[in-house]
Amino acid sequence: MSKFWSPFVKALVPYVPGEQPKLTNLVKLNTNENPYGPSPKALAAMQAELNDNLRLYPDPNGERLKRAVADYYHVRPEQVFVGNGSDEVLAHVFHGLFQHGKPLLFPDVTYSFYPVYCGLYGIDYETIALDDRFQIEVADYVRPNGGIIFPNPNAPTGCLLALEAIEQLLQANPDSVVVVDEAYIDFGGESAIALVDRYPNLLATQTLSKSRSLAGLRVGLAVGHPDLIEALERIKNSFNSYPLDRIAIAGAAAAFEDRAYFEHTCQQVIASREAVTVAMQALGFEVLPSAANFIFARHPQRDAAALAAGLREHGVIVRHFKLGRIEQFLRISIGAPEQNQALLDALKRIV
Amino acid sequence: MSKFWSPFVKALVPYVPGEQPKLTNLVKLNTNENPYGPSPKALAAMQAELNDNLRLYPDPNGERLKRAVADYYHVRPEQVFVGNGSDEVLAHVFHGLFQHGKPLLFPDVTYSFYPVYCGLYGIDYETIALDDRFQIEVADYVRPNGGIIFPNPNAPTGCLLALEAIEQLLQANPDSVVVVDEAYIDFGGESAIALVDRYPNLLATQTLSKSRSLAGLRVGLAVGHPDLIEALERIKNSFNSYPLDRIAIAGAAAAFEDRAYFEHTCQQVIASREAVTVAMQALGFEVLPSAANFIFARHPQRDAAALAAGLREHGVIVRHFKLGRIEQFLRISIGAPEQNQALLDALKRIV
Repeated sequence: MSKFWSPFVKALVPYVPGEQPKLTNLVKLNTNENPYGPSPKALAAMQAELNDNLRLYPDPNGERLKRAVADYYHVRPEQVFVGNGSDEVLAHVFHGLFQHGKPLLFPDVTYSFYPVYCGLYGIDYETIALDDRFQIEVADYVRPNGGIIFPNPNAPTGCLLALEAIEQLLQANPDSVVVVDEAYIDFGGESAIALVDRYPNLLATQTLSKSRSLAGLRVGLAVGHPDLIEALERIKNSFNSYPLDRIAIAGAAAAFEDRAYFEHTCQQVIASREAVTVAMQALGFEVLPSAANFIFARHPQRDAAALAAGLREHGVIVRHFKLGRIEQFLRISIGAPEQNQALLDALKRIV
Repeated sequence: MSKFWSPFVKALVPYVPGEQPKLTNLVKLNTNENPYGPSPKALAAMQAELNDNLRLYPDPNGERLKRAVADYYHVRPEQVFVGNGSDEVLAHVFHGLFQHGKPLLFPDVTYSFYPVYCGLYGIDYETIALDDRFQIEVADYVRPNGGIIFPNPNAPTGCLLALEAIEQLLQANPDSVVVVDEAYIDFGGESAIALVDRYPNLLATQTLSKSRSLAGLRVGLAVGHPDLIEALERIKNSFNSYPLDRIAIAGAAAAFEDRAYFEHTCQQVIASREAVTVAMQALGFEVLPSAANFIFARHPQRDAAALAAGLREHGVIVRHFKLGRIEQFLRISIGAPEQNQALLDALKRIV
């Protein structure tokens, strides 16, 4: 603490990201990265940017990427916002769309960055309890609010909310922005982007860090009504004119254009997830139904913190949240087949 | 405007960056980019990151880059903050260090993003007039304030404030953070980083977009007392855990390590600036003394807007600000010798 800090800085409780270990011999199943590399076409597109033109500013609007996203989702480029990772996009969403004097609503078990953004921008919020199967109950969100946000599938549970339920939520809250944070949607869900032309209060956010395997590149996006996008552009243009570098714009656009590679690798992750789920169930784990690239599981007779520590001793790192309702769960990213086998081998020894 | 916007969004007046034309046959002297490409060692370091590891998140703390900056300036890594371009760094500075109930002070003629940040974070400010030679008068900043910021050399004037004057300012304002925005310092000034160990209220910000020729990569930094850096880290970790991608961390660190290329290209720009200044004076221009990679000039008998339009007709774009005190000036980036010659040839025809 210092007298030079803006007073609110003292009260900030920053987000703590999953560990990025310096050791490379660990089986890293803790931050939901994709086990397969990015599209070779994305790598080639980035390669083409590595030249003297890096002396020049990038396109401040990232139009090449906006067009690629718009083409993929059959929307118009003015319905697309792009930013430096979906965390930056979400920060602008909280700042620009959620300051309304009524509390923002989100689930009690969800992405732990949401309350951090609320602290950063002074936004009041209420958490809504998931039901006892860790599902979102749409009826619980019919109450006065200044906005609603939830991941779909939810994190860290992996549970999916059907598009029909999202439509009910949108219809019940016509005066609030409803943000569907689709970081994991490509591993088994249907994007709410299909609904943006009918609901001006809907915004869907996505990241290229998971299904498009570009966590190291930092690209995220939002799709919604042009009025919502304009709010984000006004914030962005009052914050940083050029949030995406030349390499990121090119690589991200090419990743969206390479549909075959994307679909193939997503299918591999989904198949592995189902295999890991069955194998863990055979070891006595309860595994929540997942539509993501991770599973959320607990063992009725084993303490989760002890399991996480035991896995680490066997060179496998997973994520454990020391939070009331979920402290007996582990969140385990789906890796490549040999990584998943290492996980299962280690579990067999310690369970 | 939309009912969904947070109310302050309506009042935002976003920054307008210099034009990034799609045409490639223009002589582009409007956004102070470096005419020489980035260090070949920086390109090689970026190349080495183009592989499957892009599936993994980057180091959230960018430690490789912090070490390179710390080594260059003989400070400790905990005195260094890094971000996605100096505009993002400056945004966090305004948010985290300038909200104190007393007005922030900055020059009346300066980087036009400063009032935009004030709008974004609700910061009261007062502008302090430069003297009639467009110089900062330190005595004018001895008044109640919640912080002080100015570029050194100033933009768009190019005029340098000596380190002795900055020390006077720091001593006269021991209870305020004084931020020296050193985007252009390497083209003829001495960095205030030399003073950070003696003044806990000093923060210097820099960019790799100018002297290190990486505008297309988006990397900026700040150096100061660890207490000031901690405020920025708290904001950053409440906003976006991973602001710098793997390629940017590697390329920026390598650019700082390649001192020989950096010094050589800076010297070339400085020599060109002096030659362009003499040639423009011979055409009747008044050119402010510049320590930057641009010059700020007016012609006593020619309207600046007409000159800018005339230059554009000749394929040369420069920047003209339609602002009271400086509306008869042009800001002209120093280009490669053939670009500078194209500028001078065009001016000879239209002056």
